[in-house]
Amino acid sequence: MSWKASSIVARRGIAGRSVGSCHRLDEARQGKWAYVYGPYAEPVLRVRPGDVLEIETADAFGGAIRTEADLPSKVLEMPWVNPQAGPIAVEGAEKGDALVVEILDIEPRGPQPAGTTALIPEFGGLVANGQLLNPPLPERVKKMEVTRAGVRFSERITLPYAPFIGTLGVSPELEAVSSLQPDYWGGNMDLPDVAPGAIVYFPVRRAEAYLYLGDCHGCQGDGEICGVAVEIPATVTLRVDLIKGWHIAWPRLETETQIMSIGSARPMEDAVRIAYRDLVRWLVDEYGFEETEAYFLCTQAGRMRVGNVVDPNYTVAAAMAKAHLG
Amino acid sequence: MSWKASSIVARRGIAGRSVGSCHRLDEARQGKWAYVYGPYAEPVLRVRPGDVLEIETADAFGGAIRTEADLPSKVLEMPWVNPQAGPIAVEGAEKGDALVVEILDIEPRGPQPAGTTALIPEFGGLVANGQLLNPPLPERVKKMEVTRAGVRFSERITLPYAPFIGTLGVSPELEAVSSLQPDYWGGNMDLPDVAPGAIVYFPVRRAEAYLYLGDCHGCQGDGEICGVAVEIPATVTLRVDLIKGWHIAWPRLETETQIMSIGSARPMEDAVRIAYRDLVRWLVDEYGFEETEAYFLCTQAGRMRVGNVVDPNYTVAAAMAKAHLG
Amino acid sequence: MSWKASSIVARRGIAGRSVGSCHRLDEARQGKWAYVYGPYAEPVLRVRPGDVLEIETADAFGGAIRTEADLPSKVLEMPWVNPQAGPIAVEGAEKGDALVVEILDIEPRGPQPAGTTALIPEFGGLVANGQLLNPPLPERVKKMEVTRAGVRFSERITLPYAPFIGTLGVSPELEAVSSLQPDYWGGNMDLPDVAPGAIVYFPVRRAEAYLYLGDCHGCQGDGEICGVAVEIPATVTLRVDLIKGWHIAWPRLETETQIMSIGSARPMEDAVRIAYRDLVRWLVDEYGFEETEAYFLCTQAGRMRVGNVVDPNYTVAAAMAKAHLG
Amino acid sequence: MSWKASSIVARRGIAGRSVGSCHRLDEARQGKWAYVYGPYAEPVLRVRPGDVLEIETADAFGGAIRTEADLPSKVLEMPWVNPQAGPIAVEGAEKGDALVVEILDIEPRGPQPAGTTALIPEFGGLVANGQLLNPPLPERVKKMEVTRAGVRFSERITLPYAPFIGTLGVSPELEAVSSLQPDYWGGNMDLPDVAPGAIVYFPVRRAEAYLYLGDCHGCQGDGEICGVAVEIPATVTLRVDLIKGWHIAWPRLETETQIMSIGSARPMEDAVRIAYRDLVRWLVDEYGFEETEAYFLCTQAGRMRVGNVVDPNYTVAAAMAKAHLG
Repeated sequence: MSWKASSIVARRGIAGRSVGSCHRLDEARQGKWAYVYGPYAEPVLRVRPGDVLEIETADAFGGAIRTEADLPSKVLEMPWVNPQAGPIAVEGAEKGDALVVEILDIEPRGPQPAGTTALIPEFGGLVANGQLLNPPLPERVKKMEVTRAGVRFSERITLPYAPFIGTLGVSPELEAVSSLQPDYWGGNMDLPDVAPGAIVYFPVRRAEAYLYLGDCHGCQGDGEICGVAVEIPATVTLRVDLIKGWHIAWPRLETETQIMSIGSARPMEDAVRIAYRDLVRWLVDEYGFEETEAYFLCTQAGRMRVGNVVDPNYTVAAAMAKAHLG
Repeated sequence: MSWKASSIVARRGIAGRSVGSCHRLDEARQGKWAYVYGPYAEPVLRVRPGDVLEIETADAFGGAIRTEADLPSKVLEMPWVNPQAGPIAVEGAEKGDALVVEILDIEPRGPQPAGTTALIPEFGGLVANGQLLNPPLPERVKKMEVTRAGVRFSERITLPYAPFIGTLGVSPELEAVSSLQPDYWGGNMDLPDVAPGAIVYFPVRRAEAYLYLGDCHGCQGDGEICGVAVEIPATVTLRVDLIKGWHIAWPRLETETQIMSIGSARPMEDAVRIAYRDLVRWLVDEYGFEETEAYFLCTQAGRMRVGNVVDPNYTVAAAMAKAHLG
Repeated sequence: MSWKASSIVARRGIAGRSVGSCHRLDEARQGKWAYVYGPYAEPVLRVRPGDVLEIETADAFGGAIRTEADLPSKVLEMPWVNPQAGPIAVEGAEKGDALVVEILDIEPRGPQPAGTTALIPEFGGLVANGQLLNPPLPERVKKMEVTRAGVRFSERITLPYAPFIGTLGVSPELEAVSSLQPDYWGGNMDLPDVAPGAIVYFPVRRAEAYLYLGDCHGCQGDGEICGVAVEIPATVTLRVDLIKGWHIAWPRLETETQIMSIGSARPMEDAVRIAYRDLVRWLVDEYGFEETEAYFLCTQAGRMRVGNVVDPNYTVAAAMAKAHLG
Repeated sequence: MSWKASSIVARRGIAGRSVGSCHRLDEARQGKWAYVYGPYAEPVLRVRPGDVLEIETADAFGGAIRTEADLPSKVLEMPWVNPQAGPIAVEGAEKGDALVVEILDIEPRGPQPAGTTALIPEFGGLVANGQLLNPPLPERVKKMEVTRAGVRFSERITLPYAPFIGTLGVSPELEAVSSLQPDYWGGNMDLPDVAPGAIVYFPVRRAEAYLYLGDCHGCQGDGEICGVAVEIPATVTLRVDLIKGWHIAWPRLETETQIMSIGSARPMEDAVRIAYRDLVRWLVDEYGFEETEAYFLCTQAGRMRVGNVVDPNYTVAAAMAKAHLG
């Protein structure tokens, strides 16, 4: 893709790297899924910068919800949810580098209806969440057919297939944190921009980075308001790479048309502040803006995308069109 | 515009109303600006449903910042900021009705450079806001030329002219609240969708509604992160109307392609909840969805727009494409 | 009281002022209650610094809940709740002064059971508050006998009579804001320390200050978690005074043993920050601490009291024992 | 202690258990400190219910700040802070039990001045915390003499010695989370009530519970507002026990005079809700209250204590006097 000639990857001198080996990580090779992002598990795969990976992911329920009669409270056992593929070791990655994940494709897999959404008791953006005395809303499961042609929401509504990776990131240095949580290492950001056509950058904190992913969505509204998107098992195709010595504090993302900083925190305004501060600093460090000018430009032309407002941290991205970056 | 044949206005039986009188409310007729949204002032104009209004608005600084040397701390005196045109009495409006404001045009006025943005001490999304011990960032003013051709941000960057009304709404029943605040009555929402082509609905709380407006922006990024957009004096053209007996709790907005509920609160997630709950209820009441289905549809296809994350309440809108509403 | 010899009042030179006139403001003289804190009403009483006031207040429901069968949704009509006595004009008060309110006594009045608490639909700290889809908890009213001997909570539990003024403050300059809201002018702070034995200081924003009060509580837990304390009609005895030119940004309070700064905001941590920052500055301005030392002392010896976590703003006080102030 | 005859421990049938073995866990036996609360480390000690433990803890800086010239940015290396003793395996503990930790004594140790507080860049309740553009406040360290006679804050101020364990808890089931974080497992709650005379209950999530502790404070104000209390190395004496099958969701605490539920979350109001909801449920389950009565009693007589407003989660406790429990 031609836009990559001016991308961060290009600016950082690795755009021309030839494509490396291809790896396939299917369910059998993965063996047991991972449920934390952490440094304590053994890698299931070891790759080199430039390699292409084809990875099978489970849906967020580990496939336990097969029909609309499989209520979450019956078939799920906490904390064994949101299973992840990985960790995948990336040779040469060290604390202080940035891991580059280029998302090439997301293909739904498994028997139809492959897509699942649900009302889970005491979970979601518009219900009492384990802090109030109100009785929970009734549980409910909705299964949907999901193909590249669309997400069949109901007889009269078919939503566009707009797949992305709900949970993607690297290991913290010391901690092993639930795959339900988004944070500076990525994780459960549920951000629709983490989609084919995007390159995502993560701060490496331990040797070999330890990449994890899972939780693909056939489509999702901003905020994932009930807490469960169109959850699908999928085959994901990625290309990984490495930018040595690029110290970033939070995940960043780039497409043909924009750059984006991603913050995760509570309350939600803290996620906004993290994202916009990181974007301001990115404009200063990489695009030659004086800090106040960058702050003004974000004020007049910044764009925000809300990932989730339901997870242990909320995720918000702040973006700037490349058209304004000269 | 043909889309209005299926709009709320049409559903509520007033779409075909013929255009009424035209009124002009210029600075001279306004006299003193209003600084609160409230029921205690005398109306400066009285109109009928269906009437068209051409209104001159001041910029958020009341024109006091003429050059980049006019620092806010020198030329502004709190709480005399964000001057508003109004109140405009709408005949026949009663508590329990919805006021309809169709935005037809926003024209910049005044000598160039008409646009102003600024760093104001202890104000804005990325600075310590009167609650911390850090010293403030230095004040700074930036003036920009603003015409229909664009906002001249700098020598190399011209942003598209994308004007909207930053502060627009009706009077509360008992309270008279600063024009800096957004709430259920509208007010300082700083939401870029409040723009030509949109119809905005407000809950009437007092007899004759008392419409106020001001604070036009030549363009603005999502969140208005430094706290000050491209502030311009403007001439605004509106058409007002009335839907009798349509009880709405928060402002709603409609364009050719989407419907939108607008919430304002702190912390920001509460604004999200207000907006999405209102959208769910709108889908149920007006479009025949069962509540859980509406919640699921918002989860899979809702879109969010962040107005501001800097005012006394933060403003977030939740939207649904009409394409999904059958 | 001897401690007042070293109080702010003494430091500011008005401690020795002789007691002025006595005024009685009963329900008849009040006439209609006030429902907003604002500058637009006519004063019901005009007093001088040093005067003593005996004031009859209504309970937060305006006496409409007489028995446990009087459900709030039946007998209350929003926004006509939390009626206030006032405004009381204080001669000589100007913007930039501090109004001194010394609380001398609170006496329950009216027929027994005088105390009321209630579960109000969609209101309170542990219920879904107009932002969620959960159905509300059932309404309920509980009446309690309240005398100086105690609050008879149930057959087996009598709570100590610990009365305070739930809503107390002065007018903003331009705004007229609901008596349900606490803010920099005081208002509905629901802070149990606003009790006999305390002196409270408010920032004057308009000529003659315009003092309001109401909403007395027979006792209350920290946070007023269900949203309704032991609401009582009462007779309050105050002494008002004036400190010319003492610019304070938020209410402050003083007792024999401590000084206290009071913040109101959302989210709750912002109220904490406001209160502690104000306390730090108070230690610096009035007690000779260097700023970092004041910050350290608050960290090691500050005490917090939570007023409410249910009103439009949450209220938190930060206090320092006078024993540490030398 | 006689009050224990009516304690939870007594109600749950283990009050009379005879004292078991005594164990000493000094620095040498601990070897390397732990920096996460998690299930992946090997226990450093294995004890039985009823056993008494004498444990040496490091201060939150691992002793790296010896003088006021040892600035945090120079001598600390993230994430290697807040070192913990443990994990200590408790035989027989299983998921679904409650671990009982009775705090018997906290003795300062090490050369004087043993106490340390500090301003750390971009950390603390009244400074910009990695989300804003303001420059940080200057770093500063303050050393204090700490003995059982008091904390020598300055020449003129000696604060009472009021020691407690800042960080105390058990392992999550799957996660290994930084010792800087408080959550449902306890951890860095910084709650001054976790002191000699208290019994603390924790939800066991993995076999043998895995108890961790560290971060003792010589004294601390509510909220630990600058982020650093009077940090001391200490010798802690505990007695551990086990209540089989007592499912609790969050830590609970009991003293002679009160019971207390402890919540940790952001924003702060969520910590309040967690704590009060848990207290309501405790009153219902253990003390025979109907739920609404328990909610009313908390509203009228609940007491709150703020632990910290500076850590990754904020910690708030809600308490009820035993005097009201019959």
